[in-house]
Amino acid sequence: MVYIGVIGAAVCSAATVERAEAVGAGIARRGGVLICGGRGGVMEGAARGARREGGLVVGILPGRDRRQGNSYLSVALATGLGDARNAVIACACDALIAIGGGYGTLSEIGLGLKMGKPVIGLGTWRMVSGRGEAAAIITAGSPEEAVELAFRAAGGHFLCSS
Amino acid sequence: MVYIGVIGAAVCSAATVERAEAVGAGIARRGGVLICGGRGGVMEGAARGARREGGLVVGILPGRDRRQGNSYLSVALATGLGDARNAVIACACDALIAIGGGYGTLSEIGLGLKMGKPVIGLGTWRMVSGRGEAAAIITAGSPEEAVELAFRAAGGHFLCSS
Amino acid sequence: MVYIGVIGAAVCSAATVERAEAVGAGIARRGGVLICGGRGGVMEGAARGARREGGLVVGILPGRDRRQGNSYLSVALATGLGDARNAVIACACDALIAIGGGYGTLSEIGLGLKMGKPVIGLGTWRMVSGRGEAAAIITAGSPEEAVELAFRAAGGHFLCSS
Amino acid sequence: MVYIGVIGAAVCSAATVERAEAVGAGIARRGGVLICGGRGGVMEGAARGARREGGLVVGILPGRDRRQGNSYLSVALATGLGDARNAVIACACDALIAIGGGYGTLSEIGLGLKMGKPVIGLGTWRMVSGRGEAAAIITAGSPEEAVELAFRAAGGHFLCSS
Repeated sequence: MVYIGVIGAAVCSAATVERAEAVGAGIARRGGVLICGGRGGVMEGAARGARREGGLVVGILPGRDRRQGNSYLSVALATGLGDARNAVIACACDALIAIGGGYGTLSEIGLGLKMGKPVIGLGTWRMVSGRGEAAAIITAGSPEEAVELAFRAAGGHFLCSS
Repeated sequence: MVYIGVIGAAVCSAATVERAEAVGAGIARRGGVLICGGRGGVMEGAARGARREGGLVVGILPGRDRRQGNSYLSVALATGLGDARNAVIACACDALIAIGGGYGTLSEIGLGLKMGKPVIGLGTWRMVSGRGEAAAIITAGSPEEAVELAFRAAGGHFLCSS
Repeated sequence: MVYIGVIGAAVCSAATVERAEAVGAGIARRGGVLICGGRGGVMEGAARGARREGGLVVGILPGRDRRQGNSYLSVALATGLGDARNAVIACACDALIAIGGGYGTLSEIGLGLKMGKPVIGLGTWRMVSGRGEAAAIITAGSPEEAVELAFRAAGGHFLCSS
Repeated sequence: MVYIGVIGAAVCSAATVERAEAVGAGIARRGGVLICGGRGGVMEGAARGARREGGLVVGILPGRDRRQGNSYLSVALATGLGDARNAVIACACDALIAIGGGYGTLSEIGLGLKMGKPVIGLGTWRMVSGRGEAAAIITAGSPEEAVELAFRAAGGHFLCSS
């Protein structure tokens, strides 16, 4: 089974939430497990989309109280790790899809790339290193393409026949 | 929903695995989510029992490779945290059931009690502090009683009508 | 250089603090680095003793605010990890000395033993596994003996000629 | 006392190491504690510079073996947390100076900004969010300016009279 992380801000525009929902639905339709930070905004949108399609959604929360999770999680994991939980999200996935996003998302992109995980970007951060090289983010133009690229990058042989 | 952690050693006797399987089955029958360390022995036995009854099982692994998880996990989370993942297991649960166990289990009992989580013991460590006080472990005489005590301690109002 | 962890409760008797202070002083006199949880009680006593002898003391704090550390730390590390910082304390040491202690200490003893670190006990937890075996804690009768045993267990070749 | 984190890649050009060394020396001269990842490249350069000036350097290592640290650390902390140690580095500092850097550095910049820590950039990543806003990195033109900006941003009242 493929594990896809969806990362993005807890506070964002309605249009971004909509895109997250489409991404979550696409992951579930392909039989992927959706990993996210468990909070609002992009995380909630993606979780709602995935659950609507019968998918499994894991929220990896920073705090100690499971009730901080949004209401669409199949499993809400209260880690108590604070922002160090971002490393757990990156580690647990086969590929990451970044949608919009703030500094937390930026850190997850960095952690994912450091761990060698494919990162798909949908209207997210663009970064250029001190040596003028762009970060290895794979740009997607739509939620559907983002899901397609994530599953392809995560390894086609993992694909479920959902 | 109630989240019950089952903790115990990766290497243990067949009788201990059997007890873990009965505990896992009991948790699933009551509609609880089973949280464990995702490896072999007690963790595998509990996971197998829970899945047999249609339960949801989350394995929180120390390493970076999801394939280290046993084959009965609904979700295998590769945390990359090493032994610090024991704190995540304790934090994510409403109550813990310790079955037999080695030093890792000992640490999880300590972390659970530190966080104020009820800990049920089934043939596990007995501890007396430097001041002569026993640790607040609730002793169970059978897998069924351990599950009963764990759900009661976790708060009866969480009980699902499975 | 040898790194010795001193673990114990944040709230304890004056006699226990005094023992912690003697342990801290002994570690510093032998040129060891003292690692502790950075809070009050045993941690503060040990830190005070070590600083009095010119030693280096690192406090590994659970929270995000360095000012939670006691005033005798050479370095106060705010980890933000919550109780998962107990695993960092155990990992960073060559040997641990447990003085009295509550559930947090219990977890650190478990984590240390799991990682193969020698654990010296001074009026601390006594534990017997489900199979009737005592945990491999090395019992000391005095602060001086605890320090002696910790340095010996950590490997004599690390000994500094202070 | 002010704690300044220096972040950057373990493998980098000689010119970058030289800049790191000047940054480390400047931090020590002002009486700051230098926090870093404890490995080679930028981390080693900064540590060497700080120790040359009599400074205190803490290396927060990802692995379990303290000997992975470079030889200029006052304290080498083996955390065993893997890449999650990046969150500890960001949390432990009052301000961060990013010098060049790869994906690990990128994650530390994100974590630092998420935690509200000032981040000074010296030839490091430039980032623009999906909404077209640049990340709040304070750009420095030289090692000296980076140190000056870091101490100023960390709060002048912390300044030591070294």
